[in-house]
Amino acid sequence: MRIAAIGGGVIGGGWIARFLLSGHDVAVFDPHPEAQRIVGEVLANATRAWERLFQAPLPRPGRILWAGSVDEAVRDADYIQESVPERLELKHRIIAEIEAAAPGTALIGSSTSGFKPSELRQGARHPGRILVAHPFNPVYLLPVVEVVGGGAAAERACEILTGIGMKPVRIAREIDAHIGDRLLEAVWREALWLVHDGIATTEEIDDIIRFGFGLRWAQMGLFETYRIAGGEAGMRHFLGQFGPALKWPWTKLMDVPDLDEALIDRIAAQSDAQSGRHSIRALERIRDDNLVGIFQALKANDWGVGQTVRAQEDGFYAREPARAEGYPLRLHQARVSGGWVDYNGHMTEFRYLQVLGDATDAFLIHIGLDADYRAQGRSAYTVETHIRHLAEVKAGELLTVETRLLGHDAKRFRLHHAILRADGSEAATGEHMLLHVDTGAGRAMPMPPALLQALERVAAQDRAPHPDHAGAGIRPIRQREATA
Amino acid sequence: MRIAAIGGGVIGGGWIARFLLSGHDVAVFDPHPEAQRIVGEVLANATRAWERLFQAPLPRPGRILWAGSVDEAVRDADYIQESVPERLELKHRIIAEIEAAAPGTALIGSSTSGFKPSELRQGARHPGRILVAHPFNPVYLLPVVEVVGGGAAAERACEILTGIGMKPVRIAREIDAHIGDRLLEAVWREALWLVHDGIATTEEIDDIIRFGFGLRWAQMGLFETYRIAGGEAGMRHFLGQFGPALKWPWTKLMDVPDLDEALIDRIAAQSDAQSGRHSIRALERIRDDNLVGIFQALKANDWGVGQTVRAQEDGFYAREPARAEGYPLRLHQARVSGGWVDYNGHMTEFRYLQVLGDATDAFLIHIGLDADYRAQGRSAYTVETHIRHLAEVKAGELLTVETRLLGHDAKRFRLHHAILRADGSEAATGEHMLLHVDTGAGRAMPMPPALLQALERVAAQDRAPHPDHAGAGIRPIRQREATA
Repeated sequence: MRIAAIGGGVIGGGWIARFLLSGHDVAVFDPHPEAQRIVGEVLANATRAWERLFQAPLPRPGRILWAGSVDEAVRDADYIQESVPERLELKHRIIAEIEAAAPGTALIGSSTSGFKPSELRQGARHPGRILVAHPFNPVYLLPVVEVVGGGAAAERACEILTGIGMKPVRIAREIDAHIGDRLLEAVWREALWLVHDGIATTEEIDDIIRFGFGLRWAQMGLFETYRIAGGEAGMRHFLGQFGPALKWPWTKLMDVPDLDEALIDRIAAQSDAQSGRHSIRALERIRDDNLVGIFQALKANDWGVGQTVRAQEDGFYAREPARAEGYPLRLHQARVSGGWVDYNGHMTEFRYLQVLGDATDAFLIHIGLDADYRAQGRSAYTVETHIRHLAEVKAGELLTVETRLLGHDAKRFRLHHAILRADGSEAATGEHMLLHVDTGAGRAMPMPPALLQALERVAAQDRAPHPDHAGAGIRPIRQREATA
Repeated sequence: MRIAAIGGGVIGGGWIARFLLSGHDVAVFDPHPEAQRIVGEVLANATRAWERLFQAPLPRPGRILWAGSVDEAVRDADYIQESVPERLELKHRIIAEIEAAAPGTALIGSSTSGFKPSELRQGARHPGRILVAHPFNPVYLLPVVEVVGGGAAAERACEILTGIGMKPVRIAREIDAHIGDRLLEAVWREALWLVHDGIATTEEIDDIIRFGFGLRWAQMGLFETYRIAGGEAGMRHFLGQFGPALKWPWTKLMDVPDLDEALIDRIAAQSDAQSGRHSIRALERIRDDNLVGIFQALKANDWGVGQTVRAQEDGFYAREPARAEGYPLRLHQARVSGGWVDYNGHMTEFRYLQVLGDATDAFLIHIGLDADYRAQGRSAYTVETHIRHLAEVKAGELLTVETRLLGHDAKRFRLHHAILRADGSEAATGEHMLLHVDTGAGRAMPMPPALLQALERVAAQDRAPHPDHAGAGIRPIRQREATA
């Protein structure tokens, strides 16, 4: 699929990074003299975040092609993302240039936060293919994208956007500012009043959000949270209770605060006091690392944004499936995530066993000891492990595990894993004894013929001598030999 | 400190759970016939969440004392939390009953979401000690509490609330509904309009929040996020860009939607379609597990709510310090966190090595190989590990590690850890060879005399025979012996 991006600021750069990291080439036009630097910086942040976020092998990134004109950028494009400044006459001019050069079937998504499709389409040749595709910053991490403008074009756009790990939400009826920014605008106006009237500082408002309801909204939204608040009596009961508050004179939103110099001064000074000790670069990294951690936590719970990440990883695995061709078996790869490194920037000790354990799980699936098998009340438990730590690895490295079967009998099998770095050198080895168990009774039991036959097939390939360290224990130190 | 709680619904129950789990006894009065059941259910959720959230040993929980009257509950109280329904005349009556019985120095915090301190204080004997202490649901997890009403009483209240792991935000000037609920109310009104006008469903609105800006707000608030959006040009520049939007006719907030039967029907039906497949109980657990995961992710990044959790854990450790008395050494305890268990509900294999590695770190600190030492460019790396898995452990269990020094020489030392369950039985053992290294050169180097002397002192206590399994490797399986 050929992608073009018109405009490469923070938002355009985020789009470009998301397409590139998903494996698509992107043709970019932006006349800004510093466009290449800005896009480069966003891409560096995005690459760092993706390497920390995903454990699956990332796709090979696409290439960025700097075009000298809109025409050159969009000539062969299937999908064009427009992210130019928020002025309608500028958007009209750019859309006209795109339509003059792009294939008639190309889709045009606009990052506009305020304009409706009907406004963008004024004077267009093929208005039906012009859509709003409004993302949220940082575009390379936050999945949501508001898709406004209906029909087959919107369906195709949603497929493309889902393919780069986004969560498109189609909005049925166009309105100014779509949905997300209307909610944000409502909070923003109220927050401006609170600062204006000296009720709270910017930091106090932020703390009330991030130590309070912001934590709820990272995983459930407004309505699902209130559904819980309604308790067993249900949403209807909750609405009955909450409803009357709408008549109370709580908010000042009937009017608009005057954003005069005095208010701007106050907000800027409070913001400096709150966040000024971090540079913008540092704040971006803090934000991204926090988002990565939150995404990974929700992935472990298979919820919300965690499901999006899991779906992306499934896609990455599907592109580059671990193939059980050859021997030793290569059944598992893992990327060293940002949460896996210690204060030295090296992978923490116990994550080696995580990679080894995941490789063991992949071997279990390979021989048919999968979730369906476990559902019958049988499984294999590791009873003994011997690890040799041979090299430090860093965040973002891709590790490949080579697996051998060193022996088995009716109830047990003995595996050897080598964790390899990208250059083929060993980062660690693991030797593991597993016991086939009846999980209900908590007792060892013989394996059924199908599992034994699968083990036999693997064993038949294991013809090389065992590694010297196999079966070895930790060698005792002759006490005090060299300390005298 | 003696705590009393008047009112034990979802909010009151959350307060009670937070005080109890922090180690305080709580006297409770609530005339509701099902109060004990409701508080019991909230406490069960809270206990489950705290056991999963914290790795430090939790304090021994306080006792709950069910009082037959307000008088009985508050008679000896130092701090009283009032969480009765949101009717001013009821609050006045309860406050009068509290004042008639409680010590004159007792503080009275109100959970009111709407009333101002000046309203609560009408007719009070000691008005200065009556404060708003407004929390957010679930009270046992979300740290933020809005403290309104000034003076020394507010300072004392903030100390008490910080002591139970909360993040008090003092609000300078009282206003209706304080701050958090004003922001929520603004979003709520806008969201009602969006549903009312058929622009979006409850699920679409929730998705735009939880796949979008909700993820930002779990860690930074409104202003800090916008500071980043302003980029290098700063907050002032951002305000200049965003300001004009305030004049646009984006929101409908100048008016209030009529929450009539038709709108209630629509919202209730959309909410059923969105969330009805989960019971309220299930949604509570999902929410709490997600919050625990987010808290732990932010703890790893030492940011926002993660700092609150870390401070609580420091407090827990300070109460029950791991003591290096006796031998084997007991230097490390760990609680099995909710994120550590697999689909079977048992602690995942690699977390055993995490506990063993943390015990090794505790031993390193014990002999003086701490962060200051590492800052000089020297450290100890694990080069070999032998684990025996002996028992499954579950989320919430407290594990204690017993550590022995089995040998050492000028550059190496060999440790043996036993991970013990609460009943003293072994869950696993670990044997580890560590190498003293020059981290810059990446080479082994002899230890300085101080470290060697510390090791000698430990070695002098290690007089028992080594365990039989020390130094043993994984025993080979005689191939095919039992598979024929």
